[in-house]
Amino acid sequence: MAEPSRALDPQGQDVGLPQPYLLFLGDTVEPGYAKTAFGLCDWAPDRCIGELALPGATVSTGIPRLSCREAYAKGARALLIGVATPGGAIPHHWISALLDALKAGLDIVSGMHARLNDIPQLAATAEMLGRRLIDVRVPPARIPIATGRKRCGKRLLTVGTDCALGKKYAALSIARGLEGRGADVTFRATGQTGIMIAGSGIPIDAVVSDFIAGAAEMLTPDAPPDHIDVIEGQGSLFHPAYAAVSLGLLHGSQPDMFVACHEPGRTHVLGYSGFQLPSIEELILQTVVLGKLTNPDIRCVGVSLNTSGMNVEAAQRLIAAESDRLGLPVADPVRGGPAFERLLDRCQG
Amino acid sequence: MAEPSRALDPQGQDVGLPQPYLLFLGDTVEPGYAKTAFGLCDWAPDRCIGELALPGATVSTGIPRLSCREAYAKGARALLIGVATPGGAIPHHWISALLDALKAGLDIVSGMHARLNDIPQLAATAEMLGRRLIDVRVPPARIPIATGRKRCGKRLLTVGTDCALGKKYAALSIARGLEGRGADVTFRATGQTGIMIAGSGIPIDAVVSDFIAGAAEMLTPDAPPDHIDVIEGQGSLFHPAYAAVSLGLLHGSQPDMFVACHEPGRTHVLGYSGFQLPSIEELILQTVVLGKLTNPDIRCVGVSLNTSGMNVEAAQRLIAAESDRLGLPVADPVRGGPAFERLLDRCQG
Repeated sequence: MAEPSRALDPQGQDVGLPQPYLLFLGDTVEPGYAKTAFGLCDWAPDRCIGELALPGATVSTGIPRLSCREAYAKGARALLIGVATPGGAIPHHWISALLDALKAGLDIVSGMHARLNDIPQLAATAEMLGRRLIDVRVPPARIPIATGRKRCGKRLLTVGTDCALGKKYAALSIARGLEGRGADVTFRATGQTGIMIAGSGIPIDAVVSDFIAGAAEMLTPDAPPDHIDVIEGQGSLFHPAYAAVSLGLLHGSQPDMFVACHEPGRTHVLGYSGFQLPSIEELILQTVVLGKLTNPDIRCVGVSLNTSGMNVEAAQRLIAAESDRLGLPVADPVRGGPAFERLLDRCQG
Repeated sequence: MAEPSRALDPQGQDVGLPQPYLLFLGDTVEPGYAKTAFGLCDWAPDRCIGELALPGATVSTGIPRLSCREAYAKGARALLIGVATPGGAIPHHWISALLDALKAGLDIVSGMHARLNDIPQLAATAEMLGRRLIDVRVPPARIPIATGRKRCGKRLLTVGTDCALGKKYAALSIARGLEGRGADVTFRATGQTGIMIAGSGIPIDAVVSDFIAGAAEMLTPDAPPDHIDVIEGQGSLFHPAYAAVSLGLLHGSQPDMFVACHEPGRTHVLGYSGFQLPSIEELILQTVVLGKLTNPDIRCVGVSLNTSGMNVEAAQRLIAAESDRLGLPVADPVRGGPAFERLLDRCQG
């Protein structure tokens, strides 16, 4: 992640985001709503010039508070909406701050449900000033149908027993760990927060279904033989609503390697109490069986456990026991340590 | 198929097509471009009031030639574009005929790539007159995320070793065959031609990937316990570009039964010479393994072979041999006969 990852659409247009960012916190008083801003400060601090909050906000990321003009002068090129709102709407009382950003020279980047371009005042001002309003939930135009052609370079995909249990953090940690070892690595983002962190990517679950695998091919193009794309996984092959997203991403990614992600203690699909999670072994087997279609050499290089709900000792015991049981490197990438180094060894093996 | 199948969106809005149809043939001279019109006459003759062709057309479906006004007087409620064009565009010299249809009281139904609503003259006239321009490639708005909840009624899905080898014709034939036996059956269309034949449906491959399974749930709602939805399959679980579509459709359909469709002699994925087709047994196994997620009782009730490229004797020999080999009913539904009746027996067993 030494340089921003970039994805090019088939016409060669750069679909990367304008950056670095001024993080917009609105008038948020609940840290849970600012996960995007915190994620960016954690994973892409070099792309975060400062933060901007409205009167009444109590949340802060701890980086300098700047006006839009100050941020632009320091190099910022986009105001990034770093908070969510209940319902995903853009509140009316944010608009004047967003207009100020456009006037100060900044584009606006949003991952909210509501689209920036659907707000007439913003759309008109952006057009007049030549600024961009970028909704990262909107996939690029002209995604091709997948070809299935084997591409050059290595690819690693994170897959999971469920949604929302650490596939993005595992991929980011692995990309950073490999980069720290001097490997030629690109993190490939497939969800909105990942895209903001990476500076580019494709929101794979927003792609029309005929084009999912094609979008994954577009996201991870040919690369030098030793280059590793570390691809953020989505959904789960065992999810009653989202398995199709996971399969299209698996087929188009053509991963040589995958890391199976799980949260210890989670027994059922989040929000679907009638659906038991698969075991880690079932996840590995299914991923190999289905992934072989586009890459016969696919293999599991390790298991990522999200142990954020456990104390250090319990986490270490579990990691060691699971590694013995499965015969694979097992680690919590966010905790790091020797177990994670063994997982990285396997990625380079 | 005694009455038009209907699909309701979550708000209870009927997403069925206006019908019966006046089939529009344009100025087509190549029968291959009129497959939609021929398919409608074959499968939904009661919904085809007449045909309309422009000067120069040499193709005819054999049903009465009517003007738009005559067709409306006989009950037609939509002009249906029954021909394709190279590139999928709507030629400029068709427009005045389409405007005439709107003025005569007809809506317009199209499955072409170009959208009716993108032609300003048509859009303006339709709005002025209160007519609908219906592009069947456009899925309904407000498709819900799949719930995975088991629905009442029986469901049968056709699945295939590849695209374009008879899944739609198999589903239509099975629906008609079961209806002929007095069963309570609805054909559920998932592609544009199927939607025109059925009078409603959802173009599943045009649905945003997060919503594929949800679209399939919406398409095949709760029904009486003995009712059978016969669902048109799409793509193939073994297709490097479209497997995600097939998986989402499988999960959302929750089929109790499936029919495995194959074209004898086809060895590779159409247009993907690097990808061998699976065997019929592999297709059956994969469908059961993956389908079990949302319906643990899924079972294969037979195999449909598209023997259109073979003579009668060769087809019968192959059908008998495959039935012996697989221990399942095997038939070419389009040819019918005792083998097909055995397949229908199994669907009702």
